[in-house]
Amino acid sequence: MQEVRVQAPATVANVVCGFDCLGFALSEPFDEMIVRRTDAPGIRIINRDDFGVPTEPERNVAGVAAAAMLQSSGADFGLEIEITKHIKPGSGIGSSAASSAGAVVATNRLLGDRFSKTELVGFAMEGEHLASGSRHADNVAPCIFGGFTLVRSTDPLDVVTLEFPPLWATIIHPQIEIKTAEARAILPKDVPLKTATRQWGNVGSLVAGLAKGDYALIARSMEDFIVEPVRKLLIPKFDEVKAASLDAGALGGGISGSGPSIFMLSEDPTTAGRVEIAMSDVYSRTDIEFNMYISEITSSGARSI
Amino acid sequence: MQEVRVQAPATVANVVCGFDCLGFALSEPFDEMIVRRTDAPGIRIINRDDFGVPTEPERNVAGVAAAAMLQSSGADFGLEIEITKHIKPGSGIGSSAASSAGAVVATNRLLGDRFSKTELVGFAMEGEHLASGSRHADNVAPCIFGGFTLVRSTDPLDVVTLEFPPLWATIIHPQIEIKTAEARAILPKDVPLKTATRQWGNVGSLVAGLAKGDYALIARSMEDFIVEPVRKLLIPKFDEVKAASLDAGALGGGISGSGPSIFMLSEDPTTAGRVEIAMSDVYSRTDIEFNMYISEITSSGARSI
Repeated sequence: MQEVRVQAPATVANVVCGFDCLGFALSEPFDEMIVRRTDAPGIRIINRDDFGVPTEPERNVAGVAAAAMLQSSGADFGLEIEITKHIKPGSGIGSSAASSAGAVVATNRLLGDRFSKTELVGFAMEGEHLASGSRHADNVAPCIFGGFTLVRSTDPLDVVTLEFPPLWATIIHPQIEIKTAEARAILPKDVPLKTATRQWGNVGSLVAGLAKGDYALIARSMEDFIVEPVRKLLIPKFDEVKAASLDAGALGGGISGSGPSIFMLSEDPTTAGRVEIAMSDVYSRTDIEFNMYISEITSSGARSI
Repeated sequence: MQEVRVQAPATVANVVCGFDCLGFALSEPFDEMIVRRTDAPGIRIINRDDFGVPTEPERNVAGVAAAAMLQSSGADFGLEIEITKHIKPGSGIGSSAASSAGAVVATNRLLGDRFSKTELVGFAMEGEHLASGSRHADNVAPCIFGGFTLVRSTDPLDVVTLEFPPLWATIIHPQIEIKTAEARAILPKDVPLKTATRQWGNVGSLVAGLAKGDYALIARSMEDFIVEPVRKLLIPKFDEVKAASLDAGALGGGISGSGPSIFMLSEDPTTAGRVEIAMSDVYSRTDIEFNMYISEITSSGARSI
């Protein structure tokens, strides 16, 4: 095989209560990539979009992730990685994760599917490290496994796929910049044990609600006492968007990853559409540009086509 | 109805990673109670065991819990509560919870099952408050609901029943005293966010492992970075008991509630029996007296008979 085409979807990390742990994959938007085997070693990046992502392979998340995999496999060939990003960098819906994950899924195909999905997550984390300074897996795990995932541990890496009922996500992406590294810097270093206990009660019950398909329990469990109270201050109209979405029938939601995107989950596409109107109504009364997405949570992650 | 007999089982709270949140019910040991309606108001406690538990109703956990329920219901009658405890107070397997839960389950029967199970847990928490100074529900919830439970929140009270595969618990109760209030006092007030994140990763994956019946995942998830490292210092030979149990085939385990009992979970009764031998071998080489229990985790909690 000389060439592999992949689609790597956007993802939502944290899922309110599950900071650095929970995440899910959307069906769209997704990045498109073509990865070609080259006889000459080394990696060449070709950008087919207008986002101006670096093309030096050691400064490109796809380049870094693919290089880690090539090195680990001892491959004697090189790669040309042609990237058409549709997920805007800095949106908070896993743009860097999609590039990293897409690169390793495609490269693994060229290597005859040598590596497990968990190993792919490990290589893709190199891209996340470049993007944010932190080897986190809460976007690359759902991007590679699809569906809802829980990163039990990053060292050793342990990704748990979760069962979940039909769910639709509505996402608003305000066109403001929040750097992941900054969004991490404002978090408390320590938290009261009492607060942490409430938080893991919610993580456990969200997982239980997903497994049971208990929408009311899913709704009650999407509560965050630690991260949202701090990070929401970086996102204009956060509380208004959330209140309007709940009024429109959303189960719940919050900041997607480190923001600025806000996601809301609904039981069905009709409600997700009502939530879209409610969210956009709030932002239409500001002078901030925004994009919106509606997507079912799908069990397929990055896939070759 | 004039008289109700109940059995209220022992319970294991925390379940390693789920401090103040997770718990499960054993089928034995259990406390036996007879609760009789009396025309005269007020509560009278009769002890039928040798544990010397206070008989003044306002100093007895069953008395306090039943009184809270009678008051809430506006009942014009009184109660005689005859208690035969088989769960030794201070053992760490929910002795006070069994008395509190048994009293409210029986009294609810006398009241025509007026209250929901969650409301029963709320009344039984009054007994826990008397026993430990803390209104926690992680023992009374499994004692009343049976099976594995997760207390998502105590205010408002929200108890989640969890699905779980066949599991057997082996428990060793060393005859040393650890006061719940003291075991709480030595806990850190604050924890690093990084540590808390690892902990809720494990809580989420333990719930997922139970729902999937994935024994390997259950085993990997029973990790505690916060409570066990501090509390195990109060329990002689804790590390040895744990290591010997894992060698004997246990999935994992740790301190039951605030100790001193240690529990280990196994996939089947044969392994649970091997674990019993391994645990008792360690303690037989000390001069500490101990009791042992083996029980399947059952889905029935406190029940009238």
